[in-house]
Amino acid sequence: MDKKKNISMAVIKRLPKYHRYLSDLMKNDVDRISSKELSEKIGFTASQIRQDLNCFGDFGQQGYGYNVSELYSQICNILGLTKLYRTVLIGAGNIGQAIANYTRFDKLGFGMKAIFDINPKLIGIRIRDIEINDIDYLADYLKENAVDIGIICVPSNNAQKVCNILVENGVRGIWNFAPVDLIVPEDVKVEDVHLSDSLLTLSCLLNDIESSDS
Amino acid sequence: MDKKKNISMAVIKRLPKYHRYLSDLMKNDVDRISSKELSEKIGFTASQIRQDLNCFGDFGQQGYGYNVSELYSQICNILGLTKLYRTVLIGAGNIGQAIANYTRFDKLGFGMKAIFDINPKLIGIRIRDIEINDIDYLADYLKENAVDIGIICVPSNNAQKVCNILVENGVRGIWNFAPVDLIVPEDVKVEDVHLSDSLLTLSCLLNDIESSDS
Repeated sequence: MDKKKNISMAVIKRLPKYHRYLSDLMKNDVDRISSKELSEKIGFTASQIRQDLNCFGDFGQQGYGYNVSELYSQICNILGLTKLYRTVLIGAGNIGQAIANYTRFDKLGFGMKAIFDINPKLIGIRIRDIEINDIDYLADYLKENAVDIGIICVPSNNAQKVCNILVENGVRGIWNFAPVDLIVPEDVKVEDVHLSDSLLTLSCLLNDIESSDS
Repeated sequence: MDKKKNISMAVIKRLPKYHRYLSDLMKNDVDRISSKELSEKIGFTASQIRQDLNCFGDFGQQGYGYNVSELYSQICNILGLTKLYRTVLIGAGNIGQAIANYTRFDKLGFGMKAIFDINPKLIGIRIRDIEINDIDYLADYLKENAVDIGIICVPSNNAQKVCNILVENGVRGIWNFAPVDLIVPEDVKVEDVHLSDSLLTLSCLLNDIESSDS
């Protein structure tokens, strides 16, 4: 299976949902499922499911459907969940502390190795046994420790600066909670969680605008 | 301007970003901007910007560009930011507390009126002067108080149940942080923040898959 092909962001954004549903099917000991049955659960059309999964190889068998555990393990593989990731979190405010306390990410293979903040009152405190360090130590830490993903939870006016330190020291993945659009080199991947944008999307939907699915 | 027309979810999802950039331009006393200049800042093509904004009316003037404050106020109008929203939060765990503490939402017009949790240790505690109530009181509260948006931060196995209570008591907007896809009637709008899905999207991008923009 050649994974190094061009996959649209729309497909990539749907993959975690496949992961979630297949994980539930596994827990319920379902061995196989047709694209039609999967469609009813997941809410994508059967044809979209077949198209999506065909991007990554020939998973389904006509008249048999998908082997759930095989498909699950392939999706895990595509999502990179067969690896472990070392993460650091910068900004131990409300959202940062919530993320640091969320154990689900550990179970998925994202291990938080260090936390950094600028606030002297927070430095030295531990969250789940991870000490909060002075942000001045971030660059040195990254020089000494390989890190895959930097989680940015600082206020927007400091986010690009923190991002630059991460990128200059070899971090290729940025999970960004600051309400700004970060500028990074092409080989660095950014995934944004813009909470205010999400809330405004909801208010827009509530404000008498009829959305279409297209 | 007829707002009640079919707007694609893709356009709706881009509107909060326009709001963010126009808000910055306002702060920097920029009076007008061409779609080309806006394009360089915001990262959408000038043609996409013209198309997006044309969905809502005839904003730009050939050779002049957009009047920033006018466009900003129209975007606020489309996003429903000329109204105030009453929100309640259910689930005062890590993420719930972080959301309750986030003052930015208040400034945008989303006022949190009540918090609910199932945990006796949390009931009675106040977050920014909002007392955490017993979740058993949720239905009665909603019968007595008009609420626009319910923010669901409970574990996934309770999310649908909480959602049903909200919907049965007239809440039309759901901001859902639980990692499940909620089932709601058509007139109820759900906006999901699926943090694990977002993190898996990032690991997928890091895992040697070349995404295309399409």
